[in-house]
Amino acid sequence: MATSPTLNERASRLADHMAANAEALRIKVEPAANGARILNCGINTEGGLQAGLALARVCLANLAEVSLIPGDVGGLPCAHVQVSSDAPVLACMASQYAGWQVSVGDFFAMGSGPMRAAYGKEELFNHIPGKEQPPVAVGVLESGQVPDAKVVAHIAESLKLPPAKLTLLVAPASSQAGNVQVVARSLETTLHKLHELKFNLSQVVSGFGTAPLPPVATKGLQAIGRTNDAILYGGRVILWVRADDDQIAELGPKVPSSGSKDHGAPFAEIFARYGQDFYKIDPLLFSPAEVVFHNLKTGRIHAFGRVDPNVLLLSFMS
Amino acid sequence: MATSPTLNERASRLADHMAANAEALRIKVEPAANGARILNCGINTEGGLQAGLALARVCLANLAEVSLIPGDVGGLPCAHVQVSSDAPVLACMASQYAGWQVSVGDFFAMGSGPMRAAYGKEELFNHIPGKEQPPVAVGVLESGQVPDAKVVAHIAESLKLPPAKLTLLVAPASSQAGNVQVVARSLETTLHKLHELKFNLSQVVSGFGTAPLPPVATKGLQAIGRTNDAILYGGRVILWVRADDDQIAELGPKVPSSGSKDHGAPFAEIFARYGQDFYKIDPLLFSPAEVVFHNLKTGRIHAFGRVDPNVLLLSFMS
Amino acid sequence: MATSPTLNERASRLADHMAANAEALRIKVEPAANGARILNCGINTEGGLQAGLALARVCLANLAEVSLIPGDVGGLPCAHVQVSSDAPVLACMASQYAGWQVSVGDFFAMGSGPMRAAYGKEELFNHIPGKEQPPVAVGVLESGQVPDAKVVAHIAESLKLPPAKLTLLVAPASSQAGNVQVVARSLETTLHKLHELKFNLSQVVSGFGTAPLPPVATKGLQAIGRTNDAILYGGRVILWVRADDDQIAELGPKVPSSGSKDHGAPFAEIFARYGQDFYKIDPLLFSPAEVVFHNLKTGRIHAFGRVDPNVLLLSFMS
Repeated sequence: MATSPTLNERASRLADHMAANAEALRIKVEPAANGARILNCGINTEGGLQAGLALARVCLANLAEVSLIPGDVGGLPCAHVQVSSDAPVLACMASQYAGWQVSVGDFFAMGSGPMRAAYGKEELFNHIPGKEQPPVAVGVLESGQVPDAKVVAHIAESLKLPPAKLTLLVAPASSQAGNVQVVARSLETTLHKLHELKFNLSQVVSGFGTAPLPPVATKGLQAIGRTNDAILYGGRVILWVRADDDQIAELGPKVPSSGSKDHGAPFAEIFARYGQDFYKIDPLLFSPAEVVFHNLKTGRIHAFGRVDPNVLLLSFMS
Repeated sequence: MATSPTLNERASRLADHMAANAEALRIKVEPAANGARILNCGINTEGGLQAGLALARVCLANLAEVSLIPGDVGGLPCAHVQVSSDAPVLACMASQYAGWQVSVGDFFAMGSGPMRAAYGKEELFNHIPGKEQPPVAVGVLESGQVPDAKVVAHIAESLKLPPAKLTLLVAPASSQAGNVQVVARSLETTLHKLHELKFNLSQVVSGFGTAPLPPVATKGLQAIGRTNDAILYGGRVILWVRADDDQIAELGPKVPSSGSKDHGAPFAEIFARYGQDFYKIDPLLFSPAEVVFHNLKTGRIHAFGRVDPNVLLLSFMS
Repeated sequence: MATSPTLNERASRLADHMAANAEALRIKVEPAANGARILNCGINTEGGLQAGLALARVCLANLAEVSLIPGDVGGLPCAHVQVSSDAPVLACMASQYAGWQVSVGDFFAMGSGPMRAAYGKEELFNHIPGKEQPPVAVGVLESGQVPDAKVVAHIAESLKLPPAKLTLLVAPASSQAGNVQVVARSLETTLHKLHELKFNLSQVVSGFGTAPLPPVATKGLQAIGRTNDAILYGGRVILWVRADDDQIAELGPKVPSSGSKDHGAPFAEIFARYGQDFYKIDPLLFSPAEVVFHNLKTGRIHAFGRVDPNVLLLSFMS
């Protein structure tokens, strides 16, 4: 039997496929910076729905299914992004979570994707599996700037890999592909919130989530607002766990976004309320509107939270 | 032009793919019993949503599309299993229907999958096409026990094939994969009910069905109850047929589960009502909540039955 | 980097796949007429849902995703056809639009598919990109007659290609595959209507649409009625555009079918009202029930129109 591929190798194969179909995906294979491969999915290049789905799959190390499905927000037709995974902790926490802030000179990006598992120095990796020493590395940068040779050098050094072994995909949230990529995080935000609430993530077995795809914002702040609202007020997640019903019942009401005191207004309004200081916002705000636990240990369902189409409409129509 | 593959060969190729991806599917390739290949999809192994979809596809001889879609049960987010087929009689009746009770010593399983078409001795095969003499055979066993050498020998002898030509997939309904696999039977139960009602199945051209995925039960009886309820009170099926409108109009009201006098309560309650004697339950209970006929002969639609979210919630939340 | 394939080559590869799976798709590879390949998807051959999806993908030059999803029409379960594309103008206008009336002796068909881009003489091609000189050509004929050698010769001559380089797929709208193929035009009708309204289509970036799949009609007129109604009263389309909000706001109310004075009755009734003279019907009637613009230039949403399940039920149940 073949050894199972690393998270980074899985993502790298998908990135190969994206590079081979760059024209149809309307993405740009940038001139190599130090030999690294850079797939520009939304900076002065159009990208699109398929580029966004591919970007999301890379981010999840190809350990999740991601698709567009139809839906409705308060009577308005609205495509939704569906994610399902049988390896949710590896896919979402060891890979997709944007836990690496890449800051080099003027360049700033939220870094996600399996390169985080190759780096492995985030505190989170003391609590989850997934750290690896892969032969290649793949990262996703949420940014409006194409990473240059310095950024590549910084990441490659952090990973102890030659730049030629590195693939970076980049798109801002205010691009079509970036918008899809962020909204594909319904499952990830649930797991992250559970981790914050000290729920042992090894108890999470499978996950299935959906969230509405907002109109692509033109500015960064609006993009952050709408994509957050898509999850906070429109995300619906089902988790298959193996845990104690008592723990789920106790923790449960805090898991959806309604568990936070800041819940109820569009994210942009909450952000303004705190003088645009992100760190003053209740960290427990960041999770989907509805979370349903299917407890495999007992066969019981526990459901918490509610979608709020009115806040979604306020946010999307603003 | 290549000769078209047998049902069993079609299923075997899918099983090859499952075996090659055993780790990602969280299934176990059991040590060969008499040389047979045994894919354990849910006994002391996690399995998952993808394992369940693959199991369902094998069961349908890969003559149907099976996918997970989002949905709602009385306001609760609930994934649904969607099945569609352009060869519904072969896929569902000659293959997926659990018509072979495999009973060897202590071992018991409901047997389904294309091995039934290779066996071909069920009375049903006097009424449907599909009997075949394939070079390999593939069976799906709904059971909590991994089949041992004796079980393999029994099945191989029945099929007149050497054990090395046999693939068996096994999962109990009280596992993630088994749960998906049973709920993928919305179309099959419709066809079986039609057959019971003496509707000539050669008139069925295509089919499309959905049913909600219940929480995985921990006990066999609860699993039977919930998966049956998913179909009986949540299944929605569209059948393309070529038949007489009069016959459809007359037969129609009996086709959905509401055509049975036992309809209206969770299956577990009905079962208890009859002192847990399965054979006292009205056999006409077993079909989806809604069945819509598109008559290709006349262009007319005939719709029967209604989903019942209240019974589903009673069943799923119990 | 490989040169990007032409629209016709993209479609031809899909057609190869269809021919190789003719039996499962229940389509017929007709004896070569002058060496051309003819895939009969619904004339005295069953076809089906998958044949219809494949036909739609060929029609769209494989530049769109097409799938069946569940849905509801006034409480009735009804499969829907979903289409999404990141190359909507090429896929829908240069390829899928039925702009070529093929009339040779007794034979008549609405011609669509990428052969139109190879022909390139429709006035439309003065306004859109896509004209090409491909090594092969692929056309889709909506017709109840299998094209014969004369039809093949006519098309091949028009294309300046030898008949052996030509693939024609044929199905009437009153067949399963033809029915799916026509209902896969929610996005196309939106773009065509926008073009009629003098909206510059180069501003359209991506599209996503759904429409309900009506019961297959037995007669041509009923088929035209129902498939039109599926779009006119059940189509929901989201367009990502880069345009001026003022222009969208002004044009918008005219874009859905409700922008037409003829809107409100089943198509068959409208048709009868005008003495069955197609050209007396308001050309602005032909577009989906709902159209939502996501303006990438400004981040704003503009939504117009409303689905009308009552008219759909009238049409589908008639």
